[in-house]
Amino acid sequence: MSIVSGPMGGPVLIVGSVAYDSVRTPFGEVEGVLGGAASYASVSASFFSPVRMVGVVGEDFAYEDVAKLAHRDIDLAGLQRSPGKTFRWSGYYEYDMNQAHTTATELNVFEDFRPELPQNYADTSYVFLANIDPNLQLSVLGQIRRPKLAACDTMNYWIDSARDKLLEVLARCDIALMNDAEARQLSGKVNLISAGREVLDYGPRVVIIKKGEHGCLMISHDSYFAAPGYPLEEVRDPTGAGDTFAGGLAGYLARCGETDEAAVRRAIVCGSVMASFVVEDFSLDRLFRLTPEDIAERYQEIAAMTRFGGL
Amino acid sequence: MSIVSGPMGGPVLIVGSVAYDSVRTPFGEVEGVLGGAASYASVSASFFSPVRMVGVVGEDFAYEDVAKLAHRDIDLAGLQRSPGKTFRWSGYYEYDMNQAHTTATELNVFEDFRPELPQNYADTSYVFLANIDPNLQLSVLGQIRRPKLAACDTMNYWIDSARDKLLEVLARCDIALMNDAEARQLSGKVNLISAGREVLDYGPRVVIIKKGEHGCLMISHDSYFAAPGYPLEEVRDPTGAGDTFAGGLAGYLARCGETDEAAVRRAIVCGSVMASFVVEDFSLDRLFRLTPEDIAERYQEIAAMTRFGGL
Repeated sequence: MSIVSGPMGGPVLIVGSVAYDSVRTPFGEVEGVLGGAASYASVSASFFSPVRMVGVVGEDFAYEDVAKLAHRDIDLAGLQRSPGKTFRWSGYYEYDMNQAHTTATELNVFEDFRPELPQNYADTSYVFLANIDPNLQLSVLGQIRRPKLAACDTMNYWIDSARDKLLEVLARCDIALMNDAEARQLSGKVNLISAGREVLDYGPRVVIIKKGEHGCLMISHDSYFAAPGYPLEEVRDPTGAGDTFAGGLAGYLARCGETDEAAVRRAIVCGSVMASFVVEDFSLDRLFRLTPEDIAERYQEIAAMTRFGGL
Repeated sequence: MSIVSGPMGGPVLIVGSVAYDSVRTPFGEVEGVLGGAASYASVSASFFSPVRMVGVVGEDFAYEDVAKLAHRDIDLAGLQRSPGKTFRWSGYYEYDMNQAHTTATELNVFEDFRPELPQNYADTSYVFLANIDPNLQLSVLGQIRRPKLAACDTMNYWIDSARDKLLEVLARCDIALMNDAEARQLSGKVNLISAGREVLDYGPRVVIIKKGEHGCLMISHDSYFAAPGYPLEEVRDPTGAGDTFAGGLAGYLARCGETDEAAVRRAIVCGSVMASFVVEDFSLDRLFRLTPEDIAERYQEIAAMTRFGGL
């Protein structure tokens, strides 16, 4: 089941934002480039399994960007086109690339987004709910008959403003993804391990805490798994790293059709690999240039940099 | 060469501070307890190989503490006793245990410390130079005929005030240990990988960057190795974690008598194991209760939490 053989298994359904981003980092600046959680996660997942992308764009969404997604063989039947403009985000990063500074958010068509899944999507087995209103995440889950595996992400805004609904989402998901600050905020625990254990109590069988350049930590009821960040000397644009991670993870699980812990561990490494690539350039540019061979090679590199012998 | 068989190989010479610490953390408070880099590193190393501890204490240094070190079979011939009081450090930690806040430092006898090695120490093969004035680190190196492996640590103060001498130390060491902030300060590079590569250029063949709860990253000329932090729900007192790490590392290398990268990787995991224990209680209390079986078990746990299959 070499990654080089192209996408298989799945499909995986991915719902989230599609955006035009304007981003400045110490390494450059771009304006109005393709972004949004669903874009990053879908393109990332598409290297592993067929993808059904669910989101909304405005009338200004360029054919060129549709074509880029279509070239990755992403099924766009669930990508709504609404009157108005596409969601826009502007932000910048200082030298500490772990911290995004938002300068403007225009929700535009995303404000009234109500995901309506094409009927044939009801049988989807693998779902990744990117960071959107927990009510919408629940609505998507409600439109899928019996997912084999559901993963979700969230953010500080929903932890504050829609905590109860978010807990409902977590109770229905197998894998909860969040960054360290979100895990602490959601659980009220400072210690990251305690925070993760608390989130486990909300229902998911696996919690994955993303720690940016420090990699991530998986916590399950009877196990831990730590994956390092891939060492990069130049991070040009960290935007979308978390969603790219999640897309690689969900795509890999959909591909291999297994959901046990060994599969989740390999999926986490796939996610790390994908995230390590996407930050090498702005927008999704690096992913659009990526080959399955690149992925396989970096996976091996991470294996090599974590290996050690017995005492 | 099971760890359970007790210390062997070596010996390893460890030079650094011996202190009485007063520490407050969210989990408790202690006053005037045994501390200092040389104490932590020596006791940690003593589980792996015979230790020669070099430092200075005042007339107030308690027989009880001498006995504790002696019980670990640490050779104290190089521990000077000078007129005056032992070095004292007071500090506290908030919930963010990665950050120590110093409230008082009394150098006392440590101010005029001039390490004079017992003559038979000149043949020591393994040396760990804990964080002290780089001039003293050089003086110790000058008193050892031909060390097989030298490792050193440092801190922000010396990077600022004795940079040239510190660079001399680094040029003569095989392994440089520092935390992430120190690596950035020393190299002037924000990116941690670039910072590590820059430090490599100063001479050591291995740079180990300690990242607290995030574990550590080894950088050599042709390889990376990432070790995770051991997941602890309760860190009672992080004081001495870095020195305990270094002691475990140096002690293990002295024990196995190998200095290739595979040995350094195992040594890093030994260091992580020791550090994960010492923070479970105040002062060196946890180390004095530790068994070789505890060490072997936690080493296995770290192996288990980093393992993943091929794609």
